[in-house]
Amino acid sequence: MADHRFDVLGIGNAIVDVLAHVDEEFLIRHDLVKGAMRLIDEVQAERLYESLGPTIEQSGGSAANTIAALASFGCRAAFIGKVKDDQLGRVFAHDIRATGAHFDTPPAVDGPTTARCLVLITPDGERTMNTWLGAAQNLSPADIDEERVAASAITYLEGYLWDPPAAKEAFQKAADIARQAGRKVALSLSDSFCVDRHRESFLELIRTSVDILFANEAEIKALYQVSNFNDAMHAVRKDCPLAVLTRSAAGSVVALPDDVHVIEAHPVSHVEDATGAGDLFAAGFLAGHARGLDLPDAARLGALAAAEIIRQMGARATRPFHEVARENGFHHF
Amino acid sequence: MADHRFDVLGIGNAIVDVLAHVDEEFLIRHDLVKGAMRLIDEVQAERLYESLGPTIEQSGGSAANTIAALASFGCRAAFIGKVKDDQLGRVFAHDIRATGAHFDTPPAVDGPTTARCLVLITPDGERTMNTWLGAAQNLSPADIDEERVAASAITYLEGYLWDPPAAKEAFQKAADIARQAGRKVALSLSDSFCVDRHRESFLELIRTSVDILFANEAEIKALYQVSNFNDAMHAVRKDCPLAVLTRSAAGSVVALPDDVHVIEAHPVSHVEDATGAGDLFAAGFLAGHARGLDLPDAARLGALAAAEIIRQMGARATRPFHEVARENGFHHF
Repeated sequence: MADHRFDVLGIGNAIVDVLAHVDEEFLIRHDLVKGAMRLIDEVQAERLYESLGPTIEQSGGSAANTIAALASFGCRAAFIGKVKDDQLGRVFAHDIRATGAHFDTPPAVDGPTTARCLVLITPDGERTMNTWLGAAQNLSPADIDEERVAASAITYLEGYLWDPPAAKEAFQKAADIARQAGRKVALSLSDSFCVDRHRESFLELIRTSVDILFANEAEIKALYQVSNFNDAMHAVRKDCPLAVLTRSAAGSVVALPDDVHVIEAHPVSHVEDATGAGDLFAAGFLAGHARGLDLPDAARLGALAAAEIIRQMGARATRPFHEVARENGFHHF
Repeated sequence: MADHRFDVLGIGNAIVDVLAHVDEEFLIRHDLVKGAMRLIDEVQAERLYESLGPTIEQSGGSAANTIAALASFGCRAAFIGKVKDDQLGRVFAHDIRATGAHFDTPPAVDGPTTARCLVLITPDGERTMNTWLGAAQNLSPADIDEERVAASAITYLEGYLWDPPAAKEAFQKAADIARQAGRKVALSLSDSFCVDRHRESFLELIRTSVDILFANEAEIKALYQVSNFNDAMHAVRKDCPLAVLTRSAAGSVVALPDDVHVIEAHPVSHVEDATGAGDLFAAGFLAGHARGLDLPDAARLGALAAAEIIRQMGARATRPFHEVARENGFHHF
């Protein structure tokens, strides 16, 4: 196999997060399912935004968060996703490039504005997300650069990308190119409701094309429609060569067809904001993988990155992750 | 005097902050004076932004920060300032209204974009500011609503507003209306370099029209061109009926022609980001004043608000200030 130019290429919805604190009662009043991501239209987004207190704007997007963190670990990372050429689109592009990640998907010059996710943070630190996909809906197969995919050791896809129809085609094209080039495909299941929307497609993709699957407990149970974590874990071991399953404070499980590793969570004194925990777990795991750590150590690095991000607001870290890794005994960084 | 509709009306540059962490070496390399605010043009702003790591966007502006906090204390507050009708302008308008403050200055439909301040935060928590005034330059006397000013117990003006020439006229108009209506005028000196740019105008304004002056140690020394804080304090006591002088960790001084109160700083374990400390001190002081606290207690409330804001990123608080006040024994809130 040819040398690779990028350790990981991420493809996902390019989104700017709008973060606000709300109380529990706010979620009830707006009939929101705590911890979930729901898709909303622009009118709903405007209306919900009006009802929020003061906000912070920060780049987000699930795969984009993972890629930004991978670059911050010092890995060679690239991202493909669609913004509009507007102020928030320029913020998104700046922030991902500022981490050292490669990003050159041309912004849309017309059509809807850059995607926004209204992230509602409750006092327990849990986040509830409301996404207006905007320009991200227009990611198309033409945006998938064949050479870029073929030059990346891993192509990392977020399940959310299955929501916009054109993006789904782009997603499939990227997975096919990666497979044909002898590269690996990683998939994050994103959200249990997203799994409900696309279960059959996800299962087919996992069985045919996915080398590394990332999911949390709710997502893997939703995928196999079982109520017990162990049942889901045993099912995925038959379908995928490597599944990385996260369980919040209960740690994580790395499941292979013939082996299972159980990894403790990294201790955290206080959850400020859970936004990005899953994205950053994936980043730490993939960074460890790229640097040749064994699977349990890669999962420990994932747990460390997740712990670091939930101590702060938003899903983009303010300190370089290679420093955080080194301080915690990961000397490969 | 007629009843007032607003406790405080603030007039200032309407700015969105772009916050980034930098190291000390970054300031040296870019020849920046730590802790100061400098004005830059759009090209400089673009160039500096390109050189920054990942950022957070949050509403800012000195007087706007003060007004947002006053509303968060539960006071009746209003703001006048100029944004453009663009994405960041809508963020600014949302955030200040979301606190409960009244804001209806019509946004500019053409001309430069909404003002941005690139706030560089060093590891010691100090902030160094680089402001592109954009649409804020176009605040004009026509934006000053005479009834609004006359209906406000205090009109609070930021010294920075002296920089854009049209805004300076608006500033002067507001001060004149307030005086004629028998209302009070408060002024914040904003920044020692700003004082250097406008010393004679500021001195004249203070001697003729200012009832409450806010300044930090560097600013009051710059105003009187003296190197000793006590000399500056004694000078201002001759020029102004009430001066509130802040000295960071050394606390504050409330100086009247015939009396001086020395107030301790509120203890803080860690300075995350000093952005907004002065603005929030003014907010706490004015909130205390509006609720009838005596001057030392109003200054203590200012110190509390400043301590609260420097524990977090940015100059807008994530928790309502009336809660913070009550938890700290200020039962008027």
